[in-house]
Parts: sequence; structure tokens; C-alpha cells
Amino acid sequence: MSGRTRVVVVGADAAGMSAAHQAMRTAERTGRHLDVTVLDRGRHTSYSACGIPFWMAGDVASGDDLVARTAEQHRQAGIDLRLGTEVVGVSLDERTVATAAGEEIGYDELVVATGAPAVVPSWALRPDGTPYDGVGPVKTLDDGSAWLDRFAEAGDGAHVVVVGAGYVGIEAAEAALRRGLGVTVLTRGRGLALLEDEMSERVALALRAAGAEVVLDAEVTGLDVDGDRVTGVRWGDERRDADLVVVAIGVRPATGFLAGTGLPLSRVGALRPDGHGRVADGVWAAGDCCEVRRRIDDSWVFRPLGTHANKHGRALGDSLAGGTLEFPGVVDTSITRFAACDQYLEIARTGLTLAEASAGSFDPVCLTTEGTTASGYMPEADPVAIWVVADRTTRRLLGVQVVGGRGAGKRVDVAAGVLWRCGTVDDLARLDLAYAPPFSAAWDVVQIAARRVAERL
Amino acid sequence: MSGRTRVVVVGADAAGMSAAHQAMRTAERTGRHLDVTVLDRGRHTSYSACGIPFWMAGDVASGDDLVARTAEQHRQAGIDLRLGTEVVGVSLDERTVATAAGEEIGYDELVVATGAPAVVPSWALRPDGTPYDGVGPVKTLDDGSAWLDRFAEAGDGAHVVVVGAGYVGIEAAEAALRRGLGVTVLTRGRGLALLEDEMSERVALALRAAGAEVVLDAEVTGLDVDGDRVTGVRWGDERRDADLVVVAIGVRPATGFLAGTGLPLSRVGALRPDGHGRVADGVWAAGDCCEVRRRIDDSWVFRPLGTHANKHGRALGDSLAGGTLEFPGVVDTSITRFAACDQYLEIARTGLTLAEASAGSFDPVCLTTEGTTASGYMPEADPVAIWVVADRTTRRLLGVQVVGGRGAGKRVDVAAGVLWRCGTVDDLARLDLAYAPPFSAAWDVVQIAARRVAERL
Repeated sequence: MSGRTRVVVVGADAAGMSAAHQAMRTAERTGRHLDVTVLDRGRHTSYSACGIPFWMAGDVASGDDLVARTAEQHRQAGIDLRLGTEVVGVSLDERTVATAAGEEIGYDELVVATGAPAVVPSWALRPDGTPYDGVGPVKTLDDGSAWLDRFAEAGDGAHVVVVGAGYVGIEAAEAALRRGLGVTVLTRGRGLALLEDEMSERVALALRAAGAEVVLDAEVTGLDVDGDRVTGVRWGDERRDADLVVVAIGVRPATGFLAGTGLPLSRVGALRPDGHGRVADGVWAAGDCCEVRRRIDDSWVFRPLGTHANKHGRALGDSLAGGTLEFPGVVDTSITRFAACDQYLEIARTGLTLAEASAGSFDPVCLTTEGTTASGYMPEADPVAIWVVADRTTRRLLGVQVVGGRGAGKRVDVAAGVLWRCGTVDDLARLDLAYAPPFSAAWDVVQIAARRVAERL
Repeated sequence: MSGRTRVVVVGADAAGMSAAHQAMRTAERTGRHLDVTVLDRGRHTSYSACGIPFWMAGDVASGDDLVARTAEQHRQAGIDLRLGTEVVGVSLDERTVATAAGEEIGYDELVVATGAPAVVPSWALRPDGTPYDGVGPVKTLDDGSAWLDRFAEAGDGAHVVVVGAGYVGIEAAEAALRRGLGVTVLTRGRGLALLEDEMSERVALALRAAGAEVVLDAEVTGLDVDGDRVTGVRWGDERRDADLVVVAIGVRPATGFLAGTGLPLSRVGALRPDGHGRVADGVWAAGDCCEVRRRIDDSWVFRPLGTHANKHGRALGDSLAGGTLEFPGVVDTSITRFAACDQYLEIARTGLTLAEASAGSFDPVCLTTEGTTASGYMPEADPVAIWVVADRTTRRLLGVQVVGGRGAGKRVDVAAGVLWRCGTVDDLARLDLAYAPPFSAAWDVVQIAARRVAERL
């Protein structure tokens, strides 16, 4: 590679900007000469989408606080950042991208980091394709700003229906409850997304104790509206009055603009780059528009999380500039909390669910253990429940889920470390973990949970 | 092995009682017939010595709360528990132990689980060998009870000198501060035990911010006394008035009664059993009277901690009864916190110190990274400092120390998991750890710290 390399990054958020900055850093070392252009259809860069529910709840004072680096800071680092520039098509043969404004921009290396916008189903939309008044997702800074306005306008006794009980749904419910609004959470399944039923029941209990209604098996069929404004939500034979409706049913990779390129997409429309971010000759991708490799069962999974986007983007940027950094996949770790109206619950998981373990080549054995986050005699001791699944044949640890009080959630990290190397449930039970009365019992509850499953294998 | 096996356990605390119970459980499976006798010179069984400073601080209402299982509960499980029975000698040839009361008790298998009493140096003792009034260690339930009495008697303005700045010293300082007493902490070294100087400085800062005086390089030479009562503490050319003196300079294995048996003891007087607890034919040991194997550098270390005692005791009991459980050693993980007068700091370490790494066959590179316990924009975000040491040649992670706010300390567990398998600093940087704004930045601070060291190797 001689002369200058034109790198065009589509998407100016976690993955794209991590890639752009790392590419420039690595290029200094490898002697490459990169011209890095980043295009984004939006007005913002590098903001924490994960922080938006907490902004809505009042934990964060301003949307600006969620911006890790401003456009100006990126430009000062030498990146040609063009906001308000939507890419609508790509020609792999000519190595050009086409913008909505009709511009063609040539590249030598294309980085797709377009993320995954919120899914807003047709029942939420007016004929013109925009959501009814009072209805919206929780994804962008503009969404967050709109929710703050809606919360402020909603009077006493206003009721919010949250559709979807994934992490964003739970966090939106927390925000609404802390704003003093009535809340109904509707979920399509028998429990909360990504958790075993018996763990999700514990979360539902906390939501209910905080005053929220939680309805399982509720597939929304439509809204009641008064003109442009939502007034209710319908499912099955039921309905609830609704002043506001949070649409939190998931996200979908923004890969539509790749139609016609022949680049293979997964069932959910995601790219599947390798650990260096390579998709095809001259094409790279990372972040929420991609699936990631789950190490435990060597499967592709769609897990649009900022932490993966950052790590994968960095490996991509390094590799593109001649480095060797690799994103080595995930073990499906995630966490949130529910904190409202005197309820506090940390919710975390890592590894496979029972259904995933059963669908694979495993013979799963699982068990839930109850314990405390600190030695039982300490005031810090809060209840915690830990679900562990392991493989009967190989004794491999397959998954851990945690629901409990302060200090419970990040305990999955220890299990994630064992899963990372395909370790056994015995490994988890034997580790030398930090013990003092304010932090755990002499046997950490994660280890008691692992030991109990080990004894049943 | 036919007929009944007489198992005599000396010491009725974590290691001894874990061993006794596990032996009986395993014996049911293996068909062994065990008669288990446990002898202890004290009046209490199975209490959390680690909890005593928190009882002194007022976190725990009663000493009874620290008792995990009462003598009666042990006896109901079929154990012949004899309290107030001090073992003063052992004959390995005759397989008997001799008690202070002159009794000889025969055994087939002897379990030494005598623990490690607090070291009380000669300057703290009256001619009759008991501490001066107002002076004592923090180790047994009786110690805790005595401290509560002393705190209650001490009037406003009373001053406590804590000698020693290990975990117990810090916890005792917390207890005294929270009881409203003045506190001076004296430490022999340049910093707090088991921490790098720059990490211990952060702890000293918090102690001072809470109103305590912290004096480094202070080797106590004697007490000032008025009759039987302490009035001051002297070191070098200095002295402080002292109404109370906490002696927290460490513990020493209770192995004196093994003199003449020919059983090898380490420099500190500890036994060195294998992972099953075996010391010699018919002799087993576990807990604080033992050293443990540190996996990282395959060295013996004296780490008298309840979590090791529990785990080693269980493996011992299982092995003694024909099982195969093994205690696989430690990676030198420990934790405490300092919480008093609006200061809150979690303090944890795992692995080697720089001095230990340098003394071994490593070429250590270390670096301290500052970050936050949550995403910077969250109210939960407290400062945290993470020190990481790795080996330049092999990139192996060697040690991690953490000092910071709520949620900081247990982060060492992730590093402990990497150390457990002799993983690299890159492994730590790449793990899939739980991320959400209330719990970490998109890159967990432990991973940022690991990454920074990795980049310097």
C-alpha cells in the first residue's frame, strides 16, 4: 500500500469513532498514511445511547453530559467528520458511497458502523410514517430530549405504557416511575428478555412493588388514538389508557443501504465481520450493525451493546492500519438495574440461557441459589439469587444469571471470565475471590451457586 | 480401612468445622465410618473473626450474630465437640494428643486446625503476661466484647492508638472513628500492609480526611503506663497520649503444641499441607495455622483468611473420608473497606506486589490508572485507582490492586480469575464484562488499566 489511503467510515458513534481514532493512532506506528472521513446522518457523535434512560430518569443533568467527544474534538484529531450526511448506497466495484444529497464519495477502505436504530412497529405510526404524539423509542439523544419534554408535559396521574421488557424497557419504566408517572410494562414473552423465567419473575416482583403493572404474554395489536395523540394500548382482549407509550421492542441493524452490494447479511440484517472487522475486500464493519461471535458455542449472536462496539471498533481501526488487534468475541454478558420507589435490583447475565444450552450440543443442568451480597450479619447484606447452568458431560460452565441487591450484578464478571476460556463450573467454585464481611460471605455466593450445580452433575 | 476411624480435630473454627462436617458428609458416600471428635481450648465455635471489627463499629448488633453454627448445632450433626479442651502435645508414634487437663486422646487421623492467634508483643504486656488495661488485639469474640466495653467506658475526647495498618488495623480505626473516638494509626512500614506505596497513600488520605492521624515508619518501642493502665505509646523520639491501644500487628500459627513431633514448620511456624490437607501419615492440617500455595509463582505464603480456611478445610474433610476434593491454592486476593466520617473507600488486591514480582523470575512493568466506578456522567461514578503489574517477557498478568469508591473493590475478582489460570494482561483487557452506565464505563476501568499496561510491554 503506497500513497494515501482514503478511509470512509459510515457512522460516527462508538464503533465508527473508535475505529477512526485507532486507525490514525496505529497508522503513526505502521507508517501508513490515512485520510479518514466519517459520515453520519445525525447531528451528534460519540454519545452514550446506554445513558439515555438515566437522563430520562434524572440521573444525568443534560444530554451534553452523554457526549463522550464532540464533533470539534474529533476534527481536531484530524478526522474529516461530516454530520447530516446520510449514506444511501454503496458501489463495491467503484469503491464509492452515495449520499442522500446526491454526492459520490470515493474510498479505498469502507467502514460500516451504522449501528441499529430502534424498531418502531407499524401500530405506532401515523400514515405519514412518524409515531403518534406521545409515542416513541428510547435510542437517540433526540429521543431522550423528546421524552423529557413529554414527561414534563404529562400531568399528575399520567400513565406510561412501556412496550417491551428488555433492558431498555426496564430502564424506561424506572425513569417513568421516578418521574412520578403510572407505569404498565407489556412483554410479549413469559418473562423479561434474556433472563430465565424464574429470574425474570424476581424482576417483575420488584417492578410491581414499585407500583408498576407488569403484563406477560401481551402482544400489542394497536393503539387507541385521538387525532394524532395516543390514548390507549390494545393487546388480546385488553387495553390500558395511555398518555405516553415507550416503544422498547428492540433495534435492527442499519444495513438497508447495502442492498444490491451482494454483501451477506444475517437473518436480522446484520453483517458478520471477523475479529479484525473484515467483511470483504475493502469493506470493514463493527458495532451494532453487526453480529458478534459467542465463544461458548461458537455461534453468531446479535448483541448491540456499546462495550462490544467500542472493542470491535478499536480492533478494526488497528487492523485497517496494519495492526494485529483482534476482537475475540463475547460470552453474552449484560447488566442493568431497576431502582425506583424504594426498590433496588441489579440484573445481570452471562453465557447461555437454558434454551440456548439445550439447543446446542450440551446436556444442561441448572439450579438457582439464594444468598446474600455480604456476610449475613452485615447491614450491607441484601438478598441475591444466582442461576447457574452447566454441562453434565464436560462440567463446562454454560451460563450465570444474577438478580439481587447492591453489589450483586457485577458478580457475573467472574463467571464471564470462566466462560471466556470455556472453564468448568468447578473452576468457578474454586477461584480465590475477595472476601471480607461487607462484600461477601466466606464463600462468595457465586461460588456457592457453582458448587451446588457441580454437586448435581 | 475397616471398622471405625477415630478422627480428632484440634480447633473448632472455620477450617476445623468445615473439615469435620465435610468428612461426615463424604463418609456417607464412601461408606467410611468416622468418629469425629473436635477439641478447642476456647468457648466458641465457628464464628466469623473477620466480622469482629464490624461488631466493634456497630454494624453488627451482637457477638452471637457472628456465630455461624453453635456448639449445639455441631453436636446435633454427630460431632463430639469438646470446648475448653486445650491440646498441649501430640505423639505421632502413639497417635495420641495430650490435653492441658492431662487427658490423652487417641486418634487414627489427626486434623490440625488451631488457627493463628494475634501477636501481642512484649511491650504490650504486664509482668504477668497479660496486656495492660486498655490494650488488646482484635481477634476473638472475647476481644470484640472487651473492645465494646472499652469503647463504652472511654469518655468524649478519648484517644485510640492503632498499632499496625493491615486490614484489621484499618477496620479497627474505622470502628473507633465511628464510635467518635480520636484515632492515631501507626505503621512500621512506608505504607499500609499488602499494598503498593502509591495505593496505600490513597488509603492514608482517606483516613486523614476522616480525622485520623496516620504515622508511617513508626516502630513502637514501648507504652507509658499508670499502674496497670496505658497512658501513651512511644516510638522513635515521639509519643502520643493513648487511652486505648489496639494491637493489630498480625497473627502467628498456633503450632507450638507440635514441638517435638518432627513435623516441619515454615519460618513463621506454619504447616504446609498439600491441597488435600495432608501433612504426614495420619496428620492433616488446614486454615490459619498453615501456609497456602500461591499459584502465580508457585510459592508458599502465609495468608490467614477465612475464605481459604473454609475451602481448604472442606477439601481436607472430603479427602480424609476417601473423596478427591482438592484445595488448588490461592492467587493472594483480599479486600477491605474504610468507611467513617463521610469517607468511603474499598481496598483490594490480588496477585503479587511489585517487590514480589521483582524477587521472582519476572520482569515486571506496572502502572496506575485512574477512572470511575460507573460511567462518568452517572451519580454513582466514584473515583477509582487501579494498579496493574505484568511481566514484560510473557505478558502474564502478575497483580492488581484497587482503591476506590463503592463497587471498586470486588473488581479484583475478575483479575483473580485471570491470575488463576496464569493468563495475560491482554486476556484481562479483552474479557466480556458487564456494562451499563450505573456499573462501569463502556470499557470497564479494570480493562482500561490492563490495556494501558499491555501497551507498555
